[in-house]
Amino acid sequence: MTKTTTSLTAGEAAQFLLRQDNFLLVTHVRPDGDTLGSAAALCAGLRQLHKHAWILDNPQLTPLYAPYVAGLTRPDVPEGAVCVAIDLASPGLIPENAASLSFALCLDHHGSNSGYAAHTAVQPDAAACGELIYEVLGHLHCTITKPMAEALYVALSSDTGCFRFSNVTANTLAVASALKAAGANTFSINEALFLTKRLSRLRLESYLTQSVEFFAGGAVAICQLPRQIRAQLDVSEDDLNGVSSFPQQIEGVQVGILLRELENGDGKISVRTRPGFDANALCAHMGGGGHPAAAGATVPGGMEAAKAAVLQALRREGITL
Amino acid sequence: MTKTTTSLTAGEAAQFLLRQDNFLLVTHVRPDGDTLGSAAALCAGLRQLHKHAWILDNPQLTPLYAPYVAGLTRPDVPEGAVCVAIDLASPGLIPENAASLSFALCLDHHGSNSGYAAHTAVQPDAAACGELIYEVLGHLHCTITKPMAEALYVALSSDTGCFRFSNVTANTLAVASALKAAGANTFSINEALFLTKRLSRLRLESYLTQSVEFFAGGAVAICQLPRQIRAQLDVSEDDLNGVSSFPQQIEGVQVGILLRELENGDGKISVRTRPGFDANALCAHMGGGGHPAAAGATVPGGMEAAKAAVLQALRREGITL
Repeated sequence: MTKTTTSLTAGEAAQFLLRQDNFLLVTHVRPDGDTLGSAAALCAGLRQLHKHAWILDNPQLTPLYAPYVAGLTRPDVPEGAVCVAIDLASPGLIPENAASLSFALCLDHHGSNSGYAAHTAVQPDAAACGELIYEVLGHLHCTITKPMAEALYVALSSDTGCFRFSNVTANTLAVASALKAAGANTFSINEALFLTKRLSRLRLESYLTQSVEFFAGGAVAICQLPRQIRAQLDVSEDDLNGVSSFPQQIEGVQVGILLRELENGDGKISVRTRPGFDANALCAHMGGGGHPAAAGATVPGGMEAAKAAVLQALRREGITL
Repeated sequence: MTKTTTSLTAGEAAQFLLRQDNFLLVTHVRPDGDTLGSAAALCAGLRQLHKHAWILDNPQLTPLYAPYVAGLTRPDVPEGAVCVAIDLASPGLIPENAASLSFALCLDHHGSNSGYAAHTAVQPDAAACGELIYEVLGHLHCTITKPMAEALYVALSSDTGCFRFSNVTANTLAVASALKAAGANTFSINEALFLTKRLSRLRLESYLTQSVEFFAGGAVAICQLPRQIRAQLDVSEDDLNGVSSFPQQIEGVQVGILLRELENGDGKISVRTRPGFDANALCAHMGGGGHPAAAGATVPGGMEAAKAAVLQALRREGITL
C-alpha cells in the first residue's frame, strides 16, 4: 500500500479541525475504552467550539462503555461529513457501517498506522489515543469539562490496565492527574471497569484456573475455554475483556496461552509473552501474527487441534516441553 | 489519652530531620508497601544528606516487599537513636521489637493518628504516607534516585490498589508521574505487586468463587475460607493480600463478607461495603469495629458460628435476608 497521507502534529491536527465543520467520528471494531472515550471527549470539545460533531454508532458497542458516548452518537452519515477516525490503525479495523467512508483525518497512537486517511496524526509513544486527544483539545483551547475528563480517563485507564502496563509514561500519569483535577470521578469509573466483576466472569476465571496445564517446567501455561463452557457459565463479550492475559499472570509463566473454541468450531489461540520470547514468531508457525508480546492465530478443528498446533509451534521455536 | 504531640507541617518535619542524626525508622505491624516503601525512601534520602539512618527490622516482613528495604535495615536499636514512626497511626500498631521505644517524630497520613509521638506530621488527604514523604524529601532538597522513586511508587501503588481506590487525588497521580520521570521502573513493580499471581492465589480465588452465597437479593455476598482449605491450597500470607475485598467486587454486591477460620479455630469476619451501608456498625454487633467501608470482628466457634453471627448482625442492621 502506498502511503499518501500527510503527517500532522497534534497542533496541526487542531488547526485542521478548526478549519472544518460537520464532523463524524468513527471508532474501531470491537470498540474499547480508548477509541470510545477519545471520540467522546473530542466530540464534546468540538461542540464546545460550536462545531457540529457526532460519533457514528458502533454496531459492536457493549453495555460497559455505552454510558460514555450517550448523547453523542448517530446511526447515519450526514451529507458532506468530515470523517475522522479515532484510534483506528488500519482499514481492516473500520466497522462495517463505515466501510464506504473516506477519512479526512485519523488521530491515533499505533506506530503501525497504515496511513489510510488523507491526514494522520500519530503519537506512537502515547499509551492511549486519549493522551493525543488531550493534547489536541489543549491546542483547541477547549475547557476540559467533567464529562470530557471522565471520557479521557476511560481512554487512558482502558489502554493501560488502569496504569499497570508497560506503556505507561510520566505523561500518561500527568494527564491522568490533570483529568482528576478537572473533576473526573475516577473511582466510579475504576469501580465499573476494574473493581467490579460479574459472577460469570469470576466463574470463567475459576474454570480457566482449573483448566491450566503447565509445560517446560512451568514457563508455558495453557488454559482452555470450550464453547459449551462459555454458554454454561453465561459468559458475555464484556466478560471476555482481557481474558487472553489470564494464563500469563501466573507466577513463573513466560508464555501464556489461551485456547478458545469459536462459535464456528475453530480454535482461537491467544499468546502473551514476557520479554525474551517472541509471540509473533510463535503464531507465524500457525498462520497468525501480532506483536512480540501479544499475538494470535486461528486454526480449524477445535480445541484438540489448537492444542496440538500450539505445542508443535512451541517445539519449532526451540522450547523443550 | 491526652495528646501532647506537637503537630508539624511537611516543611517543619524536614527542618526537624535536618537538625537531628542517627535515625531509626519504624514500620507498622503487618507491614505493607506504604510503610515499607515510605521508610525506604526516607532512609535513603537521609543517607544522601550524610545522616546515619536505618529501618528497624520488621518481624512480619514478607518476601513480596523484602527487596525494597534490602540494605537499609538493622535488627537492633542504636544507642541514642532518634526514633521515627512511619505510617504508624497508633501504639497498637507498633511491632513488638519496637514496643519500648519513644518516638521523636511520626510521619503519617491517617486522620485517626493518636498523637503518641513527640512531634507528628499527618496529611489525612494523602492517599499514601509516600505522598507526605515525597514532599518532605523535596523540603530536604534530596535528589529522587531510581531506588527512592521505586520505593515511593511501591508506597503509592500499594495504598491505592495501583491507583484504583477512592483515596486517589490529583496529587497522588502527579507524584506518580514525577516518580516515573525520576526513572522508576513502574512496570516491573506493577508486575510483582499487581499483575502476577501465584497459582495458589488463583486456586484460592477459585475456591472463594465456588463458596459464594448470596442474600438480600444479591446485595449481600458471603464467601468462606476454612482452615483446611488454606492448608490444602498452600495459601501464603502474601496470597491473602486484599482477599477480604474479594466478595465485594461481585456486580450488585453492597455488602461483601469473608469468613476465615483462624489457626486457633476462631472465625474471622471481614466486611467491605459500598457507600450507604456501615460496616463498622455491622461489626459492632459482633464485638468488632473499623471504618464505614471496611470493618471486622472475630468470634469463637469456627465457620458456622461466624456465619450465624454475621447473619444475625445483618438482621439487626435491618437487612431482610
